[in-house]
Amino acid sequence: MKKKVCTIFYVSDGTGITAETVGYSLITQFKDIDFQQTRLPFIDSIKKAQAAADIIANTPSDFQPLVINTVVDIELRRIIHSAGGLKLDPFNRLLRRIEKNLGIERDPGVGRAHGISNKQRYDARIEATNFALSHDDGMRLNYVDADLILLGVSRSGKTPTCLYLALHYGLKAANYPITDDDLEAMKLPKEVMEFKNKLFGLTIDPFRLSQIRTERRPGSRYAELRKCQAEVSDAENIFHRNQIGFLSTTHTSIEEIAGKIMVELNFNRRLY
Amino acid sequence: MKKKVCTIFYVSDGTGITAETVGYSLITQFKDIDFQQTRLPFIDSIKKAQAAADIIANTPSDFQPLVINTVVDIELRRIIHSAGGLKLDPFNRLLRRIEKNLGIERDPGVGRAHGISNKQRYDARIEATNFALSHDDGMRLNYVDADLILLGVSRSGKTPTCLYLALHYGLKAANYPITDDDLEAMKLPKEVMEFKNKLFGLTIDPFRLSQIRTERRPGSRYAELRKCQAEVSDAENIFHRNQIGFLSTTHTSIEEIAGKIMVELNFNRRLY
Repeated sequence: MKKKVCTIFYVSDGTGITAETVGYSLITQFKDIDFQQTRLPFIDSIKKAQAAADIIANTPSDFQPLVINTVVDIELRRIIHSAGGLKLDPFNRLLRRIEKNLGIERDPGVGRAHGISNKQRYDARIEATNFALSHDDGMRLNYVDADLILLGVSRSGKTPTCLYLALHYGLKAANYPITDDDLEAMKLPKEVMEFKNKLFGLTIDPFRLSQIRTERRPGSRYAELRKCQAEVSDAENIFHRNQIGFLSTTHTSIEEIAGKIMVELNFNRRLY
Repeated sequence: MKKKVCTIFYVSDGTGITAETVGYSLITQFKDIDFQQTRLPFIDSIKKAQAAADIIANTPSDFQPLVINTVVDIELRRIIHSAGGLKLDPFNRLLRRIEKNLGIERDPGVGRAHGISNKQRYDARIEATNFALSHDDGMRLNYVDADLILLGVSRSGKTPTCLYLALHYGLKAANYPITDDDLEAMKLPKEVMEFKNKLFGLTIDPFRLSQIRTERRPGSRYAELRKCQAEVSDAENIFHRNQIGFLSTTHTSIEEIAGKIMVELNFNRRLY
């Protein structure tokens, strides 16, 4: 049976990331509906608000459209809601409760969640991203400035995790690919072991690894299941022997991997 | 005068990204309070919930602690709220309204916003990230598979933007650094111009550019203000002449740059 369609719109005067994050969390709880999601970001003029209202009113939907609206300006809000969607404001009620708790009124003109509120933090994430790039894949074995060093066999998920940690948390995340030589010697280079408290390992199901490597180099020894099984098993042995914490990336999203690493290594950084 | 402190906790059985995104949006509207933010992710057992409650109860705060709690399990929620914080649930009320609109009850067991819900989409973002890395900084001038190509002078913000677009939207974002030769010839290579509809330019304030380049190579001609001014002005000329859309990264966050590029190039991709 074809699922019924419900449109949902993320309307914002900024990037719409907050509206989308909230809306996506809501709709994941209804599996029998086919939600058609549309982001309507940077709605900061009457003309754009009217265009947004037109889209909301005219996109086919089997239900009243859902509208997550985080636009601050009252006139623009009114135009957007003239389209007749179900108004879902994630903040208003919570803000009133916080105002009461603090005994202070909000100042809606102030922050913008994903704008450039703090130059220093912005620079930190750019610097961390550059660090991750220049210390990717064992390119430089100089980890004095690293906040953490991810270890793992080739294609276990190190690079995307490092980039995510850098872009979102400003962490200087290096990564070192465990080589065949390391596996044979059953130990890691001294440049790496020197920073034992910065180390964290990634592992992966060998079947999955073989699949990923096959896409990259079909028919190679590198992609053979037996080779992948041996590498993963040896790498996990190295982690165990050296008491290096590790986790499997097989059924884990980048966000979850990053989050768990930060818990394990005790980083309490803010999300950018 | 020293600001009063209010603790805020982002408690989740997953990554806590949704809770943090909501909470951060709320507190940006109160500028006179020093909010002490703590993420308490992966709270999925009674023991962890009790540890979280201890942290909430025992962290010094001039106000009742704020608790954004997105944990699903009722018993764990109860333990967390036994700490006496102000319960701020961003979803419950909205979910009830959506249930009414759809005539369907939610199924809380279903989705998890930042878990690995869709393998295909997960693979797409990894593939896009690899693409961004292998097509960074004009490394490969083969843009057949690119979704977009960012142009700009060295250090105008191309690389972090490409990585963000890849990691979050699965977009294959290449970037091409406009060279001195291009600027002198006042045109772009044919390998780039071939894909005119994929092009987007980044520009930057020359003072800011000079500052960034100085940090990288102090005292170099590359970092000289006059050189930066000439490069930026010539690059903008090339954009104008070729009717290539562009924006300035000077006062813009990575999220905003990415969002605006997607609007300009008409991508309606979901946020991962």
